[in-house]
Amino acid sequence: MEERAFIERMLARTTAMALEHYPRRAAIHVSSKANPNDLLTEVDLAIQDAIVEGIRRQFPNDAVAAEERDFSRLPADPGARCWVIDPIDGTQNFVRGLFPAFGISIALAVGGQPVAGGVAIPGTGDVFLAERGAGATRNGRAARVSDVRSVSMARVEIDFAGPLERRETVNRSAEIVCAAGQVRCNSATAAALCTIASNDMDGFFHVGLFPWDYAAGMLIVQEAGGKVTRLDGSPVALFDGGLGMAATNGHIHDEFLRLIPRA
Amino acid sequence: MEERAFIERMLARTTAMALEHYPRRAAIHVSSKANPNDLLTEVDLAIQDAIVEGIRRQFPNDAVAAEERDFSRLPADPGARCWVIDPIDGTQNFVRGLFPAFGISIALAVGGQPVAGGVAIPGTGDVFLAERGAGATRNGRAARVSDVRSVSMARVEIDFAGPLERRETVNRSAEIVCAAGQVRCNSATAAALCTIASNDMDGFFHVGLFPWDYAAGMLIVQEAGGKVTRLDGSPVALFDGGLGMAATNGHIHDEFLRLIPRA
Repeated sequence: MEERAFIERMLARTTAMALEHYPRRAAIHVSSKANPNDLLTEVDLAIQDAIVEGIRRQFPNDAVAAEERDFSRLPADPGARCWVIDPIDGTQNFVRGLFPAFGISIALAVGGQPVAGGVAIPGTGDVFLAERGAGATRNGRAARVSDVRSVSMARVEIDFAGPLERRETVNRSAEIVCAAGQVRCNSATAAALCTIASNDMDGFFHVGLFPWDYAAGMLIVQEAGGKVTRLDGSPVALFDGGLGMAATNGHIHDEFLRLIPRA
Repeated sequence: MEERAFIERMLARTTAMALEHYPRRAAIHVSSKANPNDLLTEVDLAIQDAIVEGIRRQFPNDAVAAEERDFSRLPADPGARCWVIDPIDGTQNFVRGLFPAFGISIALAVGGQPVAGGVAIPGTGDVFLAERGAGATRNGRAARVSDVRSVSMARVEIDFAGPLERRETVNRSAEIVCAAGQVRCNSATAAALCTIASNDMDGFFHVGLFPWDYAAGMLIVQEAGGKVTRLDGSPVALFDGGLGMAATNGHIHDEFLRLIPRA
């Protein structure tokens, strides 16, 4: 598939850009967006520009939805081909340099469903790719979700997100947190979804996502055998206006959802 | 100081052991301890044995308290010289391979206070060392806490610990979670404390620790300019029977404590 090859090439090019800037991140110009904890760096912009430029050249008729600049409006025609991009998912982690938990996420959606997607984790060198109906890979080898069968034995990421969603997150995640085998939070959605596809984690909870946060990761989880729904169990479409997401290895999905009270 | 040089040498040797086993972790024999989520591997045991053997040779009269085998009783004389060891802090992370977030922690305590300590993070290559009154280092360079002045701008690790402490953690951490700029959880205490010393994180909260979890990390935070207390603000002594811990960059400590309800 031409699109998958394009995604792989763009991830390689932009991973190099991220790694070039990462050691000098203390000198990167950082500004904030909606609130002081919502960061934007020149690296986010440069990576997004490179991807958008590649799309304009190779797929000039496709729409683009992306986190930065004026691409963050959702497409007027949700049925059209639309590229969905997060240049750096986990900008906070990138800036403060704590974890390798930041990713570059690129997906192509048709009719609001991702049909091809990829996530690169520059800090570890991992590249996840997926194509609808053709499976998911991690560094070229088939990726497959875990076989964990109960929340009590599961490793779960509760993404506590930004301060505005924090109270809702605390209230709606409390029973999952109490029931889970292990709880982790790295607040980089694309990277977290990949850890479910790679059998490192088993569940993911978030109350307030944008399509670019999960377009590629959602497909990667699904193609690795996992399940992705809204928090009430309804299906996810990228431009449906929904915000919450539960993603699991599939085996624990029903139990996971039952632990979430309604908003 | 002879003890600091000894710690540095033992961390180098055992880091090599951890890195040797890490790529083959899927084949490592894993058993569980108090509950199915409390894991023990042959690597934990081999690393602890190597450190204990080193202590027996170089400091034969010192006591040892350590996480594994029959060393997990606290010393009969809390005033004596006692080495406090966690061979792998973050065994879950080590086994499932998600993060570089596991550490090897070695400290010497005198009178219940750590006087020398070191933590190695094999996954990143970082080595933190500290000596009472002589500062803390990360890879040989001075480590210094952040200058963040409010919880609303802070990156905070809430360690959700094991399932038994989960409900208490949820209840007592909720206001910090809601107030914090960013929330993270990697559940490797020694590594998390080092991130405060290195200016990557600003606060840490845990309701149920053992001395080997924090003996070295506590000293590293203090010597990097941070503050460590029990959750009620009282001082920490390693063998005082206390379980909870708040560690911060110092600037946010009082605000952090005010957000924690009594048990």
